[in-house]
Amino acid sequence: MISKQKTFLIVGLGLLGGSYAMRLKEQGYYVMGIARRQETIDYALANNIIDEGTIALDENIRKADYIILGLYPTTMIDWVMENQQYFKENALISDVSGVKSNIVEPIQKILRSDLEFISAHPMAGKENSGIEHANTEMFKHANYIITPTPNNTKEAIEFSNDLANVLGFNHISVLSCEEHDKMIGFLSQLTHVIAVSLMNTHDNSHLVEYTGDSFRDLTRIAKINEHMWTELFILNKDILLDEIDAFASSLQSFKEVLQNEDEENMKQLFRQSTARRIKFDKK
Amino acid sequence: MISKQKTFLIVGLGLLGGSYAMRLKEQGYYVMGIARRQETIDYALANNIIDEGTIALDENIRKADYIILGLYPTTMIDWVMENQQYFKENALISDVSGVKSNIVEPIQKILRSDLEFISAHPMAGKENSGIEHANTEMFKHANYIITPTPNNTKEAIEFSNDLANVLGFNHISVLSCEEHDKMIGFLSQLTHVIAVSLMNTHDNSHLVEYTGDSFRDLTRIAKINEHMWTELFILNKDILLDEIDAFASSLQSFKEVLQNEDEENMKQLFRQSTARRIKFDKK
Repeated sequence: MISKQKTFLIVGLGLLGGSYAMRLKEQGYYVMGIARRQETIDYALANNIIDEGTIALDENIRKADYIILGLYPTTMIDWVMENQQYFKENALISDVSGVKSNIVEPIQKILRSDLEFISAHPMAGKENSGIEHANTEMFKHANYIITPTPNNTKEAIEFSNDLANVLGFNHISVLSCEEHDKMIGFLSQLTHVIAVSLMNTHDNSHLVEYTGDSFRDLTRIAKINEHMWTELFILNKDILLDEIDAFASSLQSFKEVLQNEDEENMKQLFRQSTARRIKFDKK
Repeated sequence: MISKQKTFLIVGLGLLGGSYAMRLKEQGYYVMGIARRQETIDYALANNIIDEGTIALDENIRKADYIILGLYPTTMIDWVMENQQYFKENALISDVSGVKSNIVEPIQKILRSDLEFISAHPMAGKENSGIEHANTEMFKHANYIITPTPNNTKEAIEFSNDLANVLGFNHISVLSCEEHDKMIGFLSQLTHVIAVSLMNTHDNSHLVEYTGDSFRDLTRIAKINEHMWTELFILNKDILLDEIDAFASSLQSFKEVLQNEDEENMKQLFRQSTARRIKFDKK
């Protein structure tokens, strides 16, 4: 349990940062926010998402026991470097970043020795971004993955687990940064590459009136935040390139079977995909 | 308007044939059914889906003014060849097949001169098959595409349009067989190839607990009827091979941009996919 006497600072009030703040405040914690634009702070105050907020960094940060970085991955390292001088002694820091290997250890390396960074990936969020879409419902069916390194204490991992419970996540698990990035490279990043590449195959706006659910479902994630995903993909480049190659080769195998009108092997590929996909049906 | 005095024969009481029968009977038409198995006929009679049904072909077929072929594409030609001797004079025949170019003209060619075949593609149906999943709801949000050839009369095209209205389709359009097959090659067949190839990329059952909606949505159609889709793909082979190549080349372009960490062009690809996908949002 995280004591209600503790104070949180959310750095970056976007969709995820804003939703964290909203839920923590609802649960009775004192929540401070930092954003780049005053209008974000005004919105967060007016909608009861934070208790106090600022666009200027100052001694006030020192009140926070827990600091959640809701920033873009590459921004995080610089921000910590510049601002950890203002952090409370022994403060615990976490994040919401979607890639880990090239982020977590670098931050741990530059961190003041009394501070600890425990990284986690809340697998929530939709096509929308911005605090105006913040809501606490999106955690209810989502996974929360804690990605500790050998530098982390048992207490910090416990805190991360407690935080996920306070936020109301459906499922909490622990993976190494490498396992996390491999999993995310396949399940999330490759699927986005596929959806984007499919939309980019032709200009198909003349087909809109014939479109059924399967095309819409498959390409929903082709509406994509270009800045964040460019960062995430490049930070996970090697793994994602491997996944693209593996998928391209599976696609090529299918193409050959079709080219040869090899009915038996085509049926076999269909049976395999069906059997595998059934395991992914929601229980 | 199709007169309520007219009699329908549905050949093949699967998901689509069964749903056609159910809706036509609901609307007051006399509906006969032919199936391969007596238990399908028994089910259809017990559930008020047909007025009469048989597994044996006989003179009774001659009662039908309209014959809807709910058969697999390649089965259709042989079935018509063998059984058109029993068709009523001047009967009108239609189908539900998902590919057209290699089906429609061949059937028109072998048809008795007093008969007419007007082809259509009801773009309804889910992962399920079989009459026990028949329902009339699935037509409500679906497209119905009439694919006439120069051999078709204006009256037959009008009948097909009226039939779509009786069935309750949301949107009716007319395309040539070639336009239809190109559209379906991209919007439906390529998306199924992608979903199947993605599931076949790795054995990923250990990732089930981390899976979010985007992966589930993208791979939903990887659960696939191996017999029907093998036929549909091979019948539309040339178009589908072109679509696979076009998509593979779009995927390759994305891979190069990632390999080069070319942020500007990656963002451009994201902006293009986003702009295109927005047009496909349901109004």
